[in-house]
Amino acid sequence: MRTSNFLIATQKETPADAEVISHQLMLRAGLIRKLAAGLYTWLPLGLRVLRKVENVVREEMDAAGAQEVSMPVVQPAELWQESGRWEQYGPELLRIQDRHQRDFCLGPTHEEVVTELVRNEIKSYKQLPLNLYQIQTKVRDEIRPRFGIMRSREFLMKDAYSFHVDQASLEATYQDMHQAYTHIFTRLGLDFRPVIADTGSIGGSASHEFHVLANSGEDDIAFSDSSDYAANVEMAEAIAPAGERPAPGADMAELATPGVRTIDDLAKFLSIDPATTVKTLIAHGEEGQLVALVLRGDHQLNTIKAEKLAAIASPLQLAEEAEVRKALGAGFGSLGPVGLDIEVIVDRSAAALADFTCGANRDEYHLTGVNWERDCTPGSIEDIRDVVEGDPSPDGHGKLLIKRGIEVGHIFQLGCKYSEAMKASVLDENGKSVTMTMGCYGIGVSRVVAAAIEQNHDDKGIIWPPAMAPFQLAMVPLNMQKSEAVASCAEELYQQLKSAGIDVLLDDRNERPGVKFADMELTGIPHRIVIGDRALAEGNIEYKGRRDADSRLVPREEIVTFLREQLQD
Amino acid sequence: MRTSNFLIATQKETPADAEVISHQLMLRAGLIRKLAAGLYTWLPLGLRVLRKVENVVREEMDAAGAQEVSMPVVQPAELWQESGRWEQYGPELLRIQDRHQRDFCLGPTHEEVVTELVRNEIKSYKQLPLNLYQIQTKVRDEIRPRFGIMRSREFLMKDAYSFHVDQASLEATYQDMHQAYTHIFTRLGLDFRPVIADTGSIGGSASHEFHVLANSGEDDIAFSDSSDYAANVEMAEAIAPAGERPAPGADMAELATPGVRTIDDLAKFLSIDPATTVKTLIAHGEEGQLVALVLRGDHQLNTIKAEKLAAIASPLQLAEEAEVRKALGAGFGSLGPVGLDIEVIVDRSAAALADFTCGANRDEYHLTGVNWERDCTPGSIEDIRDVVEGDPSPDGHGKLLIKRGIEVGHIFQLGCKYSEAMKASVLDENGKSVTMTMGCYGIGVSRVVAAAIEQNHDDKGIIWPPAMAPFQLAMVPLNMQKSEAVASCAEELYQQLKSAGIDVLLDDRNERPGVKFADMELTGIPHRIVIGDRALAEGNIEYKGRRDADSRLVPREEIVTFLREQLQD
Repeated sequence: MRTSNFLIATQKETPADAEVISHQLMLRAGLIRKLAAGLYTWLPLGLRVLRKVENVVREEMDAAGAQEVSMPVVQPAELWQESGRWEQYGPELLRIQDRHQRDFCLGPTHEEVVTELVRNEIKSYKQLPLNLYQIQTKVRDEIRPRFGIMRSREFLMKDAYSFHVDQASLEATYQDMHQAYTHIFTRLGLDFRPVIADTGSIGGSASHEFHVLANSGEDDIAFSDSSDYAANVEMAEAIAPAGERPAPGADMAELATPGVRTIDDLAKFLSIDPATTVKTLIAHGEEGQLVALVLRGDHQLNTIKAEKLAAIASPLQLAEEAEVRKALGAGFGSLGPVGLDIEVIVDRSAAALADFTCGANRDEYHLTGVNWERDCTPGSIEDIRDVVEGDPSPDGHGKLLIKRGIEVGHIFQLGCKYSEAMKASVLDENGKSVTMTMGCYGIGVSRVVAAAIEQNHDDKGIIWPPAMAPFQLAMVPLNMQKSEAVASCAEELYQQLKSAGIDVLLDDRNERPGVKFADMELTGIPHRIVIGDRALAEGNIEYKGRRDADSRLVPREEIVTFLREQLQD
Repeated sequence: MRTSNFLIATQKETPADAEVISHQLMLRAGLIRKLAAGLYTWLPLGLRVLRKVENVVREEMDAAGAQEVSMPVVQPAELWQESGRWEQYGPELLRIQDRHQRDFCLGPTHEEVVTELVRNEIKSYKQLPLNLYQIQTKVRDEIRPRFGIMRSREFLMKDAYSFHVDQASLEATYQDMHQAYTHIFTRLGLDFRPVIADTGSIGGSASHEFHVLANSGEDDIAFSDSSDYAANVEMAEAIAPAGERPAPGADMAELATPGVRTIDDLAKFLSIDPATTVKTLIAHGEEGQLVALVLRGDHQLNTIKAEKLAAIASPLQLAEEAEVRKALGAGFGSLGPVGLDIEVIVDRSAAALADFTCGANRDEYHLTGVNWERDCTPGSIEDIRDVVEGDPSPDGHGKLLIKRGIEVGHIFQLGCKYSEAMKASVLDENGKSVTMTMGCYGIGVSRVVAAAIEQNHDDKGIIWPPAMAPFQLAMVPLNMQKSEAVASCAEELYQQLKSAGIDVLLDDRNERPGVKFADMELTGIPHRIVIGDRALAEGNIEYKGRRDADSRLVPREEIVTFLREQLQD
């Protein structure tokens, strides 16, 4: 391709309303343009990237035995009423009426439509498992679209839905999809983690999110430094510290701590490590009673874990200070487990401490040298905290690291939520009608493009992983309009490279070298050659990889072979 | 691909609500399924066909220098208000509101969006011409969707928009697109005609429709039997008959024709050829006056041609009989050009008659032996009739044939309709601001699939043109589950054919041969081989082309080479 036939729409200025780097760079490099809030046009350069992602996704889905279909964007309300989501789904569901005042919606997801299809087509267990997918523009009426295509109102999605006669078959396909996703993101050259996820409101029994690691991510991901283990921080198990709890070594003593409200205050006041203190939070129990949650001073309560405990009300409600003072005789900042006559739930790490410091349940007093069993008794010991970096990995291999991640894929074991509501059943081998079990598997195809940029860029612009690059190679002839030698070498080499199957962009614009260099760097093309009179006089072409600090000279006669090797790496 | 991993969803019964053959066959062959009125899901088999069409379209658009983009489906009302179409466009435009009560529509077409894009991006004539296209799902709220995907509410469209500094550049791109469309429909193996079209309400100066010829088409296409000429019947010029008008040979005579109202009545009553009679229609003129339109008895008035005449009111209004009787003294069925004192416009063919028969302007009387000039004078001679089969082609080459056509493509020279309304201009070489000139070019990608079936089917099902076939070759092993010889030959051959790059569907279902044969014929796969014990015992494989009457035997060792040759034809 030649830039003279290709819309290069780079911009120097960073657009004012673009908050994240991928949004800024996609606008500046001319990949997308905003039509309205959350609605973007993909320009030719951006669309080439999007199509590369799409093709990798399609190839791996096909290889995993999924079958591609194309379902309508416009969906009748009746199906959503049948599943119960017409009422449940929030205003993100763009509801519309046709000219006959019939209700429809623009599908953000297709569980209902695919279940309707499959319940009509599939009658026997012999036709299962069946895994149908599509790559389609979805619409979601975001209240506040932002971050460019990362949270937009239209986006390209791969959504797949599998149908099974039993849970074992679902689990097999779920594993295939897990594997396919791993292939996809590996082929795309992204640093990612499949992350154990909370199944949240979708229901179902198992779920993994696939996250691209990037500083700008919205989620905290905890993962092992020496195994495949990864989970959302909220989901990662904080395992009990190894070894026995030390025996008590100090006597318990009460001391006045005027003005001390927080663990920080306490550690500073006594010159001690926060990890040798405990803090006591008071929550409402299932019956409305008060329950104490005791954590190590340097740890944070994990709401999701706490809510899952039978004794704790869900959603978690922490008690008001007035209520606490009335019941326990002291306010926040002076609470502790000693002498409490309410249920006490102790985090595993807090339970492993000896000779710790805590509130005395008397305002502005604390206790030092406190020991479990001797001075107070834990009601139960549970995992109720967020993991922190350095915690042992729950799978027993290595330690946890925590990084931010951008969710680009999600796989779910849906179970029978939709098939039950919509009566999708088959006959099993005994001729008995059984409700189909379902899985669903999404990839935010357009989101992958933004996530790749968040992970791969520098101050000059985008650095595409090779599999996603709009072109593999940029070819910049200097002074082409005046130098016959440069023009003819460029033309000849361009034809050679095309014949060699290299996807090359020849920058034949009549622009200054600086403009061309800046554009090729901004647009993130992984390899660049420069053809100029000076190097050419000595039979050389200049080469520079997008991540290289310096360029180097390669003899003209070796350049095609050289580039082929570079591109294979 | 194996049928055991591929959804074959054929049906025996013809669905009751499917009126046209393509709709019936697409449902029966399992290409599509209806979700709601005018909304269809493409099943895996259908989607393979759709993608093949899409890819041919994309390749030829790219080869013609067009650049692919992807614009949002959801479009803000403001742009349509700017162009004036928010009010003009009928209820086919699906108007919606987002959660903030802002107006949007689901784009049936993207002139406004692309003009908005280009007016922001393109500043100089040096960046022109620019031809942007997309292949996208469009939404049109049809009042009565029917004919399956032929007239549906969602459909896949290729829409392209070109921008130019002047008319000459537009015409060059228009020719390129004409050529690209010709390549596309030729590669797809369709019998089609590029047809001169009425530009209708879209405006602009030139337009061609591309029609696939098929008996079920909605439009009548007139085309030369010996040149490229083709036009919608309404647009085709009826040229004047060759040679001089014969000299009068009979005397004019009046005769009573009781009960004669129509040309048919008259021809029967007098035992004469309708082509020797003329009929006289009365229309309103520009000023409300009456004007006579005189045609040969066997010809039909062409409303569009008549409306274009300065003397005739547009839209054409024929006079009521009472008004005619009052003004001319006779009713319908007895009118004629002799002695009329209103303007008389005569069709070219009627003007070439001598000794003709016509109404006498006296109820139930006609005149015979009438001659122009001697007995009555034409006010003007014009082309105001529909062409008929056998008419000379207007380009001077051959005679006209008329067939029905299905419109699958349309190219327009739009001119400045949108660029003017939306102020899309560039600086020309003199630094002067000029409004860009536009063209637009559409292909109904999903419609092409239906049109291909309308043109290519028999009583057994679809007969795909090779370039559109979901698979090139069907492989039917007989009794595979019991015969080890058949199973191992099938498996070995399947691998060989895949390695040879042949897109083969192996029907490994445990079904009776008759079921498999019927399915492979219904789904229209162009080539079929059968592997059975009997032929295999003599070292043979059975081959049958989809259009062949009989099958033939091919030695096993020659079959791959043989099939390669068949597929190349």
